[in-house]
Amino acid sequence: MSQPLDIAVVGATGSVGETLVQILEELEFPVATLHLLASMESAGSSVMFAGKKVRVREVDSFDFAQVKLAFFAAGAAVSRSFAQKAREAGCSVIDLSGGLDDALALVPEANGEVVDSLALPALLASPSSAAVALAVALAPLKGLLDIERVQVMACLAVSSQGREAVNELARQTAELLNARPLEPRFFDRQVAFNLLAQVGATDEQGHAALERRLVSELRVLLGLPELKISVSCVQVPVFFGDSFSVAVQSRQSVDLQSVNQALDAAASVERVENDDYPTPVGDAVGQDVVYVGRVRHGVDEDQQLNLWLTTDNVRKGAALNAVQLAQLLIKKMA
Amino acid sequence: MSQPLDIAVVGATGSVGETLVQILEELEFPVATLHLLASMESAGSSVMFAGKKVRVREVDSFDFAQVKLAFFAAGAAVSRSFAQKAREAGCSVIDLSGGLDDALALVPEANGEVVDSLALPALLASPSSAAVALAVALAPLKGLLDIERVQVMACLAVSSQGREAVNELARQTAELLNARPLEPRFFDRQVAFNLLAQVGATDEQGHAALERRLVSELRVLLGLPELKISVSCVQVPVFFGDSFSVAVQSRQSVDLQSVNQALDAAASVERVENDDYPTPVGDAVGQDVVYVGRVRHGVDEDQQLNLWLTTDNVRKGAALNAVQLAQLLIKKMA
Repeated sequence: MSQPLDIAVVGATGSVGETLVQILEELEFPVATLHLLASMESAGSSVMFAGKKVRVREVDSFDFAQVKLAFFAAGAAVSRSFAQKAREAGCSVIDLSGGLDDALALVPEANGEVVDSLALPALLASPSSAAVALAVALAPLKGLLDIERVQVMACLAVSSQGREAVNELARQTAELLNARPLEPRFFDRQVAFNLLAQVGATDEQGHAALERRLVSELRVLLGLPELKISVSCVQVPVFFGDSFSVAVQSRQSVDLQSVNQALDAAASVERVENDDYPTPVGDAVGQDVVYVGRVRHGVDEDQQLNLWLTTDNVRKGAALNAVQLAQLLIKKMA
Repeated sequence: MSQPLDIAVVGATGSVGETLVQILEELEFPVATLHLLASMESAGSSVMFAGKKVRVREVDSFDFAQVKLAFFAAGAAVSRSFAQKAREAGCSVIDLSGGLDDALALVPEANGEVVDSLALPALLASPSSAAVALAVALAPLKGLLDIERVQVMACLAVSSQGREAVNELARQTAELLNARPLEPRFFDRQVAFNLLAQVGATDEQGHAALERRLVSELRVLLGLPELKISVSCVQVPVFFGDSFSVAVQSRQSVDLQSVNQALDAAASVERVENDDYPTPVGDAVGQDVVYVGRVRHGVDEDQQLNLWLTTDNVRKGAALNAVQLAQLLIKKMA
């Protein structure tokens, strides 16, 4: 058992931050004092931890020298303002915002061994939830396949954009079912009973920032810097649980039996046999694994491996992965 | 103007059949007498055509020698029972069921020229709505790209499974919003706010019949019998409008400007610029074209072309395509 540690969670009132605090408690993470921090608007509320109400304070006035480890789950701007300050005060940072270019993307099941060679205080990034899901599912297959290309369609739940987006899907759906005129608020158009083919603004080449981020994170996580990755991110009218249609192109014939064995042996993967398939609502939500189903070749093509993944984007895709990174870090601190 | 023709529509009370009858009227298709047919359960009702109520009669007792052209939109079993009989009576058949293996898959915008060499009475298949959408969008690009592979994720609206599926999505959504327990009926599980990774049963290799059908139809429609096509069909909680995330792998660098020009020149394609994107609800529903957006290369890869398509699955994907085939056929009959 590691020594209890003083810890800060920045963005403790957001959906990822709140889930993160829950998971620290569930996994009995060795916390001495837990400091919950947020921007001015959210400070003053309180969050339950280990049977006690913990007051959320302003991040601006917090002295990071008080803690050895800080999670940043309050968005890119907050990470950019305070993460460097925290590290200078001797605090290791696990960033969930995607806003720190120099943070090393880490998923324990994929490239966890990198932690061994890190100096403290460390700066780690828990990657986009899409990259976490794909890394967890593909890392066990790396040795089996001579991967030429990975093709991904990511179907993202609205919760990946926070609580406001969740409320907006519910509100839009209710308006439509009651035949009331729809006035989109959080999204710029109807998301209920619709698909939005673009998540966030696109650059001059037509790629969304999240799509580019997923490509670069996945290359790092799989240790394949030259890997060809094609990705489209789509916003779907699902509250929780991201899903992914994945085609892996291998340079050799894919042995499905070995693939299934490798997936079954992976602790963070739950494989579903081909007479069934996993769904975000029915399987993924609230769970700690990535569900993998529809394992099959391409039609007329045994060098292709097709998969369907679904996982809890807030929990496994973000909060749990960050806590798993913290578990690796505290071993170094001991 | 062609001579008016006696025509039968089998499955006139289904959503595709009903739309088909509407389109015959909208396009002022030269109809002399319109015979509306259905299975025993649906016979007896009536459908409006050209300002008159037309009674729907039983297909079992219909003499197909009365008509020169019959649309079959009542499912595979009905087509298998009556289409051959109709042809033997001298009637050309346009099948929308996918149930006739010897019917030639046709999309006017892709392989319409094949009609010239057909003998009458003809047996044509209006392909799956996914194949129609893909053929309409890809045919204009065939000459521009040296296509090695087409990768498709098809996000199918519930209406592709008929009216009962549409009602079930509405019912499930209302139950969930009212916090009542959900008892799935038409689908075997929750489809509201969820994604179902499989449409129909899968075979031993893990492919759904619709996925295999799409592959073989698209090869015929594009005239590329060896084309590598990877496809996953997913049921999404959208009422009307199928959407497709498509990646085309070319053996040469793709010139996006020429692609955009070719798409703009195609009459049945509506291209949406990259500062926006088309959606099923906002664009496709009720329209006669395939919307194409998010035209872009792959990340770090100019031999890849990415597209997002959306189209009205009942109208453009089925009923309208069948009527367009009929328009080609009547020219031969004149």
